[in-house]
Formats: sequence, C-alpha cells, structure tokens
Amino acid sequence: MLTAEIIAIGSELLTPRFKDTNSVFLTQQLNRMGISVAMRTIAGDHEDKLEHALKSAMDRTPIVITIGGLGPTEDDITRKAVAQVTRRQLVLDDVVLEKLKARFAKRSMPMPANNARQALVPAGAEVLDNPNGTAPGLWLSNEKNTLILLPGPPRELEPMFERSCCPRLIKMAGSLALSVRTYRTTGLPESTLDARIAPIYTKYRNPETTVLSKPGQVDIHLIARAKTVAEADRLVDELGNQIDQELGDFVFARSDQELEEIVGMYLVLKGATIAVAESCTGGMMAERLTSVPGSSRYFTSGIVTYSNESKIALVGIPPLVLEMEGAVSKEVSVGLAESVREKIGSTIGVGITGIAGPDGGTPEKPVGTVHVAVSGPEGTTHLQFVFPGARDRVRWQSSQAALDMVRRYLETL
Amino acid sequence: MLTAEIIAIGSELLTPRFKDTNSVFLTQQLNRMGISVAMRTIAGDHEDKLEHALKSAMDRTPIVITIGGLGPTEDDITRKAVAQVTRRQLVLDDVVLEKLKARFAKRSMPMPANNARQALVPAGAEVLDNPNGTAPGLWLSNEKNTLILLPGPPRELEPMFERSCCPRLIKMAGSLALSVRTYRTTGLPESTLDARIAPIYTKYRNPETTVLSKPGQVDIHLIARAKTVAEADRLVDELGNQIDQELGDFVFARSDQELEEIVGMYLVLKGATIAVAESCTGGMMAERLTSVPGSSRYFTSGIVTYSNESKIALVGIPPLVLEMEGAVSKEVSVGLAESVREKIGSTIGVGITGIAGPDGGTPEKPVGTVHVAVSGPEGTTHLQFVFPGARDRVRWQSSQAALDMVRRYLETL
Repeated sequence: MLTAEIIAIGSELLTPRFKDTNSVFLTQQLNRMGISVAMRTIAGDHEDKLEHALKSAMDRTPIVITIGGLGPTEDDITRKAVAQVTRRQLVLDDVVLEKLKARFAKRSMPMPANNARQALVPAGAEVLDNPNGTAPGLWLSNEKNTLILLPGPPRELEPMFERSCCPRLIKMAGSLALSVRTYRTTGLPESTLDARIAPIYTKYRNPETTVLSKPGQVDIHLIARAKTVAEADRLVDELGNQIDQELGDFVFARSDQELEEIVGMYLVLKGATIAVAESCTGGMMAERLTSVPGSSRYFTSGIVTYSNESKIALVGIPPLVLEMEGAVSKEVSVGLAESVREKIGSTIGVGITGIAGPDGGTPEKPVGTVHVAVSGPEGTTHLQFVFPGARDRVRWQSSQAALDMVRRYLETL
Repeated sequence: MLTAEIIAIGSELLTPRFKDTNSVFLTQQLNRMGISVAMRTIAGDHEDKLEHALKSAMDRTPIVITIGGLGPTEDDITRKAVAQVTRRQLVLDDVVLEKLKARFAKRSMPMPANNARQALVPAGAEVLDNPNGTAPGLWLSNEKNTLILLPGPPRELEPMFERSCCPRLIKMAGSLALSVRTYRTTGLPESTLDARIAPIYTKYRNPETTVLSKPGQVDIHLIARAKTVAEADRLVDELGNQIDQELGDFVFARSDQELEEIVGMYLVLKGATIAVAESCTGGMMAERLTSVPGSSRYFTSGIVTYSNESKIALVGIPPLVLEMEGAVSKEVSVGLAESVREKIGSTIGVGITGIAGPDGGTPEKPVGTVHVAVSGPEGTTHLQFVFPGARDRVRWQSSQAALDMVRRYLETL
C-alpha cells in the first residue's frame, strides 16, 4: 500500500488555539484514495532541522507532503530547505511573480517587497496554482519520491490539494479500495466502552479499529481495505453493525458529524425550535448550536444569565428560589429551561447552571457540579452531573451533556 | 544546548477538535529550563511505526518524551513499543497494580480487567506517580538517552511533569539561561506587520524571532539565550522594546495572554462591567469573555439575538429599523450595543451583527460583512468589517474585532 508522510512547518503549530485541520483534511483525503499516512512531523522554523526531517521522511516514505512555511515572512523557510535537500537551485518564476503583482494590483495595494520571495521556486518544480492566496504550491518528483509543498491556510490548501494533487495521487495509488466509518458516542467512559466492544473488534484485523477519547465523547473509527469498494463496505458493515448494536443509543452519529450537527438535524426533522438559558457555559451552548450552517432554521435566541440578577431580570427566576436552593440547583436549571422556552415561544428550552471553577466550589457543591434541564411539549427532564477537570473541560462537558439530553428528548417526540 | 523531542501517540491527534495543549505546555516548560525542542512527531496507534519513530528520535536527540498511549484500551501501545525498542521485558508492577485497585475501590467501582494492563512496566523503568488518573508515567535512562513516558490527559501530564520530571531535567540542563517574550497583536495583516518589523529583528540572531499568524492575530515570539538570566533578559528587552514601539497600540499583550484575558483585566482595572448582544457570533463573544476565570466580576449577561424577532423582543430593536436598514447594518449593531447596555445597566454594551455564511450574502452585503458597535459612558463607536473565509473564521474574527474595540474603548476611559 502506498504511504505518505505529512510535515507541518512553523511554530504556530505550538500555539494553544491552533486547530490542525490541515492534517485531518489531508489524512482523510489520502485514506480515501487508499494512501495511508505513516507519520506526521511538526518542524519549527529552523532550516537545518527541517532539512533533517525532510531527509528522514524521504528516506522511509515515497510521498512527502509539507504544509506551510511558504509565506512572505523571514521565517518561512520551506522553499530553501527543499531546494537544499533536493539539491536544486532556487530560481525566480516569472509567471508566479506576475500573478503576485496582479493580485495586489487588483486590490489597489502596492506589493510588499517580501512577497516577491514567494516567486522563488526550486529548479524543475511544478507550480500549483493558488487562487485563494499569494503562496503557490509546488510539486517535485524524482525516481524515489514525490514531494508536495502546500500553503498553510486551509482555505488555500484544501482547493489546491483537491484540484491539483488528487487526480495525480489517485493514479499513483492504483485501485485498492478503502471503506471508512466512524461511530461517535457520548455518555460512556472510554474504559467502560472499550470493555464492551474490544471482545468484538479484536476478532478482526481488517477492518482496523481505533478508539479515540476526548472529554464527553468516545469515537470508534473503522477502516477496511479490499480489492473492491463493495467488499470493503461489506467488511465495515459486518463489524460496524455489531459495535452499533452493542452500544445502542450511546451512539449519536455514524459519521464524522459533531453532536451539535446531529441535534440540528433532529430539530429540523421534528420541525422544532430551541432556545437556551445558560450560566456556567457562558454562551458555549448557543455558540455550538449556531456553529452549524443553517442553524437559523431552529435556533432563535440564547440568554447568558451569568449573574443572579440576570437570572431574575432576563428569565424571571424567582429571587426566593435562588435564595432557598442556590443558583446551582435542580430548581434553577428547570426554571431556566421552562422560562426561556415560554419567553421565546420555542419548542425546546434548555437551562444550564453549574460551577465551572476554579473557584466557587463547596463541600456540598464541588467544582464541576452542573445541573441541566430540557423542557418541551412532553414535560421537563433534569440531570445533575459532577464533571472532572478544569474550567474549560467542565464547560465543554456541560454543553456536551446538554446537547445529548436534547438529542434524547427529541427522539421521544 | 540540551535538546528534547516530543512524540505524541494516538490517532486522536488527527481529530479536528483536539487541542494539542500538551506539546505547548512541555515546550514552554523545557524552554524555561534551557532545553530546546528539536522536533515533534505524531505517531498513530501502529506499534511498528511508533517503534520507528522512537528509534529515530533516540538516535538524534538525548531526551525523548512521549505523550499518551498509556491508557487501558487495546490501541494504547506505548509501553509495548518502548519495551521493544529498549529491549526490556514488560513486567507487572505490584505497587502500581495496588494503587489502581485502590483507586477504583475508593469510587466503589469494580476495576475493569483491561485497566490491569496499566501496571505493566518495562524492566528497570522508574514509575512516576499519577495522582490524577490511572496511567502512571515512566522514566527510563541509559548512557545515551533519557526516555520519559507521560499520560495524555493534560490534568494528569502537567502535575506529573512539574513534580517528577522538572527537578531532574533542570539538573541535566545545567546553567544556560533563557529569556522568552511574546508580543500579541491584532489589526495588522501578517505581511504588513512583518514588513514593518523585519528590518528590526533581522539585525539580531539572538534573540531569535518567530512571527506566528492566525485569523485576526499575529504573535511575535522572542527567545534569547545567554550565560545569565539578567543578560538574556537584557537581550530580549533591547529587541523587544524596538518592536513594541514600532507596532504601538496594535500590541495588545506582552505575554501569552489571550485577548479576552486582556479585556477582562482592563474591565477589572476600570471597575467596569460588560453586557453583549450578539447575532452572527451566536454566543462566541460571551463564551470567550466567560472563559476567563473570575469573569463574573465584570460579565453579567449576554443575549444571543439570532432571529429578527429576538432582536425586537429581547433587546428592543425597533421593527422599522430592521426593515429599513436590514438586520446586518450599522444601525442594528449600534441599537444592540446601546439597548443591551441600558437593559442590563452595564458600563459597556457590545452589539455584533453580520453574515457568517455560507448562505445569506448579497452583492451589497457579501458573506463576511460584520458590524460591531461598542457603547459606554463616552458614547458609541462602530466599525464595519468584511472578513474573508468560511463561517468559523468569520465568527472568530468578529469576536476578535469586537474584543479589540472594547480594549481600545476601555483605554479611553
């Protein structure tokens, strides 16, 4: 089976907010063609270390794809390192230079001198057009390796890869067929889930099974390889159906969809709308619901009632309830869900209140205590949780639990 | 200078939501000790490929740190691969086993059989205690290498590394001093910013400068190395102050703090409170403000007015304004900011309305059009933006621009 390695370049990969969507995208695309990703490396902006990483990758793997380091700044050094490793000269490509100039002219901006660096190309490399940015991609090949240089921004990388690289890679990969499936679950800890399904999936080497855990979610990935698509699909079906049956309604998706997308789909199917009154999640529940394109069909309003005053003023929680039960209580979560539903006139109302930490915990109500209520035409459901971990993790798990409660509620409608 | 490599293990590193905070944490910690991170590798759950990655890393770098793959499931294979590469047998560690049993007993849960696998230890390895989870860490050393195995969850990895690894690594690193500084900016595109500061920082090889760009933010990292801390600090000061002066108030932080933390700090300093009425960002602005511990001191309420009806009912935007100007307009953003401020009685009110896409754009108001208004005791400021990119990116940049407008507003108070 043909293999590829991905080398992502740049220290931005070390920053906390960075989402490495590129590698996920490339891995999915390559797998679909029957090319497996053998390894991923992240190299900083040091030329000698990048050269070392490139050499190692080219030694062990036929296809090497680099991401990033093609920008106009001083520390974007991919072109130079590749020229060095492949022993080619960097030459100025006139066509690329003209395109760069035209791009800036179109926006009536003078081209900064450092952008001209993006027109430097290792001799003999083929230029891959970049309609969405200034950095062109590059394709180099010799007898042993195919080396593909892609720009870092996903909106530049993705169309370039699909248009300029996929057709050729599919030819190189030949005809081996692949079938992949993901089962996404919430509500079961990883070890409990694995104890239930390991006896099933360890019987199979093909499909290959991977269990991936993150707070509030465990995903199961199956990849089957066969000579035909039909046969690969059959293999995935055979194992997948057993796993699916074992896990029952803990499975919320049989694809790569997020829980908020599944909830959105259910809301559309049921012709229902949703409104949210949230405290400890601070807007995360509304943010996740509205992150889905088209969510205006079902999401109308959210209220972030962070202070006690706002719980009274914006949603109408009675001051006496807050005083008697405390802001973090079953009664307040139910009040938030029912009142926001009534106030907005939505099918479903959600109330979330809890202690995300790091402060605010007590022996009776430790950090991580969260009450979630879901209200609708069939009445109101409520659950109390005590989530482990720090503030971020408690907030994330709260939104995950609330979305799952909404999913389960909608199933009963 | 002593160098380390980090190998993160597990296919979960390929999922879109995964934040690789571990590598950031380890890199920061190691740098502070004067140990530089030479390379990072992400290996999947294949034992042979993990062995290859371990061997390569141990060949070129004295300290190798692995993250993850110590869990109880079938695909957690770090222990086995390390035993193979270091030619040691896996033996059952009774102390670890007893601790595992005690941990489950304390929570009145039976220990799943697969957790016992976590008590397997390569012969001669030292066990690193894990008070926050079931997977113990491991420390192996021979003449050439130090190999450190850490668990994947950050709340397990971080205290383990700080308590069990740092003291020893500091001794190994000797006395070379390091000084690091980050300047975070928003409002300038990467190439414009770099054109302004490259003439300054290219004069210096020490400190080393890295420019990191993400949507709505460009960070500049400086690392200086010297024999004493005072000298390293002096080097960072000398270059840093020139960069700082050149970029002026585009710099929002001189540390690793996020924009929402800086805004929170300003709000506390000014004794001000903030309320938000947001449409296209769908709760992201409230979520970012409340992600900061202690934000209840200044954040009271947020309203997500996704539909036109909710803009009227929840914040009191006049229907005529919506009809005449459209929901995405200066007038509506100003109305949201001023009305939410009045309704909540906060010092600052923020209004955000825009078209995040993928649908809803028109020739006059394309996808990415966003209006932001900030209202306060000194009147109301408004800006219109047209952000590039997909839905996620538009929403993120909108929240970034709104936070920056709040920062600049607070500076005038």
